[in-house]
Amino acid sequence: MLLLRAVTGRRLPLPLPRRAWSRTGAARFAAGSPGPGGTGRAAPVLAALLGLGAVLAYGERRRRTAQAAQAPRYPRYTREEVGRHRSPQDRVWVTHGTDVFDVTDFVELHPGGADKILLAAGGALEPFWALYAVHSQPHVLELLREYKVGELSPEEAPPAAAATGDPFTGDPPRHPGLRVNSQKPFNAEPPAELLAERFLTPNELFFTRNHLPVPAVDPGSYRLRVEGPGGRALSLSLPELRSRFPKHEVTATLQCAGNRRAEMSQVRPVKGLPWDIGAISTARWGGARLRDVLLHAGFEEQREGEWHVCFEGLDADAGGAPYGASIPYGRAVSPAADVLLAYEMNGEELPRDHGFPVRVVVPGVVGARSVKWLRRVAVSPAESPSHWQQNDYKGFSPCVDWDTVDYKTAPAIQELPVQSAITHPRPGAAVPAGELTVKGYAWSGGGRPVVRVDVSLDGGRTWRVARLAGEQPPPERAWAWVLWELRAPVAAGAELEIVCKAVDGSYNVQPDSHAPIWNLRGVLSNAWHRVRVSVRD
Amino acid sequence: MLLLRAVTGRRLPLPLPRRAWSRTGAARFAAGSPGPGGTGRAAPVLAALLGLGAVLAYGERRRRTAQAAQAPRYPRYTREEVGRHRSPQDRVWVTHGTDVFDVTDFVELHPGGADKILLAAGGALEPFWALYAVHSQPHVLELLREYKVGELSPEEAPPAAAATGDPFTGDPPRHPGLRVNSQKPFNAEPPAELLAERFLTPNELFFTRNHLPVPAVDPGSYRLRVEGPGGRALSLSLPELRSRFPKHEVTATLQCAGNRRAEMSQVRPVKGLPWDIGAISTARWGGARLRDVLLHAGFEEQREGEWHVCFEGLDADAGGAPYGASIPYGRAVSPAADVLLAYEMNGEELPRDHGFPVRVVVPGVVGARSVKWLRRVAVSPAESPSHWQQNDYKGFSPCVDWDTVDYKTAPAIQELPVQSAITHPRPGAAVPAGELTVKGYAWSGGGRPVVRVDVSLDGGRTWRVARLAGEQPPPERAWAWVLWELRAPVAAGAELEIVCKAVDGSYNVQPDSHAPIWNLRGVLSNAWHRVRVSVRD
Repeated sequence: MLLLRAVTGRRLPLPLPRRAWSRTGAARFAAGSPGPGGTGRAAPVLAALLGLGAVLAYGERRRRTAQAAQAPRYPRYTREEVGRHRSPQDRVWVTHGTDVFDVTDFVELHPGGADKILLAAGGALEPFWALYAVHSQPHVLELLREYKVGELSPEEAPPAAAATGDPFTGDPPRHPGLRVNSQKPFNAEPPAELLAERFLTPNELFFTRNHLPVPAVDPGSYRLRVEGPGGRALSLSLPELRSRFPKHEVTATLQCAGNRRAEMSQVRPVKGLPWDIGAISTARWGGARLRDVLLHAGFEEQREGEWHVCFEGLDADAGGAPYGASIPYGRAVSPAADVLLAYEMNGEELPRDHGFPVRVVVPGVVGARSVKWLRRVAVSPAESPSHWQQNDYKGFSPCVDWDTVDYKTAPAIQELPVQSAITHPRPGAAVPAGELTVKGYAWSGGGRPVVRVDVSLDGGRTWRVARLAGEQPPPERAWAWVLWELRAPVAAGAELEIVCKAVDGSYNVQPDSHAPIWNLRGVLSNAWHRVRVSVRD
Repeated sequence: MLLLRAVTGRRLPLPLPRRAWSRTGAARFAAGSPGPGGTGRAAPVLAALLGLGAVLAYGERRRRTAQAAQAPRYPRYTREEVGRHRSPQDRVWVTHGTDVFDVTDFVELHPGGADKILLAAGGALEPFWALYAVHSQPHVLELLREYKVGELSPEEAPPAAAATGDPFTGDPPRHPGLRVNSQKPFNAEPPAELLAERFLTPNELFFTRNHLPVPAVDPGSYRLRVEGPGGRALSLSLPELRSRFPKHEVTATLQCAGNRRAEMSQVRPVKGLPWDIGAISTARWGGARLRDVLLHAGFEEQREGEWHVCFEGLDADAGGAPYGASIPYGRAVSPAADVLLAYEMNGEELPRDHGFPVRVVVPGVVGARSVKWLRRVAVSPAESPSHWQQNDYKGFSPCVDWDTVDYKTAPAIQELPVQSAITHPRPGAAVPAGELTVKGYAWSGGGRPVVRVDVSLDGGRTWRVARLAGEQPPPERAWAWVLWELRAPVAAGAELEIVCKAVDGSYNVQPDSHAPIWNLRGVLSNAWHRVRVSVRD
């Protein structure tokens, strides 16, 4: 198991208890109470965490807050208003439950470092606390309470898209901690340093790859159309999907084909969103098996010849054309492939950004085939006619440019190649001398497990083997990433080029460099990940 | 389809008819007759093939041979005696059927070039003629007949191993054209330049990887033991295996984990046979499906938990320990995995070097699991206890050496990573200016098709896309290699570094270089293949 590092910036050698992460992490923390001995335990723990100076400052703050707390009513703020407070200059606000806190004065006292607390600035604390289990102690909530400055207004309904003329007006609120690559459509990734802190990514921080506005779906009137053989069709309501088919749960990583495009575009410009290393996340998905639904609709286990299962989303462009994609029939009906029509994500209903109320989840396959806001499933001798199946999400040779590209010559990406990245430290960091901990993720497509991660501190000249964490997957169903860690001594003054590369169960490896896999759309960017850092005294 | 190049050295623009290769190529050629107009057609065709000077020399030779042919009886030679004639100094002898020919004087007249005919020196012509369809014309046999100098002695039985004290005494005769990496046990590969001439490798030239002496098996008393559930066991004779189970045919490439080890050992020495690029070959295999045999023995389609199907060969070491290996149960029973208990290879019974009378063929998986001379099949919760499953055929990090290696830390190789190599031109060649044809093979494990091969002529700086040949495989059952070809203009005086790299259906690619995938056993050597040549005037 990967040990959570309790404190980042200050590296206190403090053994902190680790707790299993709850599937309803946000709810758990929101419902937290000080518990027996709550405040009583806070002072010594904080003394250890913060050192004496910090505790004195905390005591002073506590006295002032105690006076302010006598005011019985707090002002109300919208999430948008809270979201404007993301730096010490603008004050640093966060929310927890429906409470609003101004933690500006605590930022420098934060045991995990000012940089980490600022990742949550302007938004909810819960997804970050889910990542760092140290917060799930009563004294932490106690401490926070004293910074309260307001409460959240009840959510206002967003203005209708038609009224504003902007089709994205109806998009849901998002956590301001996400690193946004495009607002409309919304495309964002979790901060890289948080990615590998937790095996399951909190829903609020799960990378979001939208191609179109988020549809507003009324769950009561929602119907999923499944076109069966011979012109028959099923029309399934949400309760029917939930009750007629056994609920199946799968822990699976989704990755966008464009993950790490920013690195590839440093070779030569490419067309596409500049994803860093965070277009990848992992969740526990729950839903009906696509296989069960297809068999229920009248399809057989096997069909002679070439067949594809095509999906359409409720998201559509200005002309009404929906997002669409397809997967081979064999994968759709294989009991070993675990393809879901998912209505749950980490034990909660699907968030709107992730396909509420129903999305496809195709484990081991490029995220683009896991169609969100699913409205229609059909079986066809041809792949989906969608733009995103036919003329996007394909790989080409470095010699192919926009004048010569012929999308018919390359297969639609399905399984992705082996991938890994370093999440800590970050590029350009000055790390302390002594023992350096390098952390990251690794994953491969098609259910192939990651069997080894090699890490180099000298640009790839010499290698060490990282320690792998994560669940032990069933053979050939390794749908989820592994998190890995390497500890190594580093000397003050050294300049390190940290490199990682993973090996999967078929002994496929990542290529050394990006130039030879460069392609005009910047997809499939899986060369060794390199991070340069310096070691300070 | 890849067009066979009719003439190599002289590049005459002669359109020659292409004939489908017969599965019983040797028999076809042995039975060949001049046919209608045989000798009559020879002269003009030869004139075109050889040019006038060659025809004059041929005419002179023909007169002399006509006189010699009046002698009714030829001397008898053993295969071993023929095998000593492999160079112009020792005379160049070849066989066809049971006839022995001294073709020394024809070597320089050979339209395909002296280098090509010398590949066959000392052995049978048939496998080479199977590669070069141009020979399947009556005049070729007619021409050959005039070089006859003897006939093969009836095969003598090899001395018994016990009598000589050498357990390899009973090994079968081999074609002298094979490039031998080890005589005892016998390990040999076809000459690299022949590899990609034919989609199916002739049996005589198929790479041979033996770990132990070749067992002498009496097909009449042969029994295959299949241990069923609950202590029951099947004992199948060869006729029973052939008659009780449907014959299933699969075209599959086998590759040794050590293919291209010689390149990896240039980084640092490794332990293992110095295979060049030829530890890979392709055949059409015929036999019973392992799945059918296992189900017949009482096993189910699925078993809860982890199970393995273990194989033992009749080949054994001095202590009696047999060669052994295993594959996961799921692959063994999957109808899509096409695992065979093969008794046919390219339409003929299995040659002794390839497992006569029965071998396993596991498509998409390292050759080491395709156990030859199969004697026993058993299902076990653990992998085969064999040395070759437990303590060999595994991949390690470059940082692992013989002092630190722990075989338990790495999974046994099953599916192999994506691979490709250049078969023409050969390293160090001086190629003519004008249009250069680069040829090679590409393959990936697990049934993943090769979707693209990139070729560079400048060491990997710029790339072109090769043309792929070969059969169109069913989805996810691409068990056979693809042959590829690139034609490009090259200028006199240029020094080329030709590089190839393949992309498979999961968009996995080959790594750029060998050093980062170096491992102490030199397996899984699949970095870009590089061939340096110069362009002559």
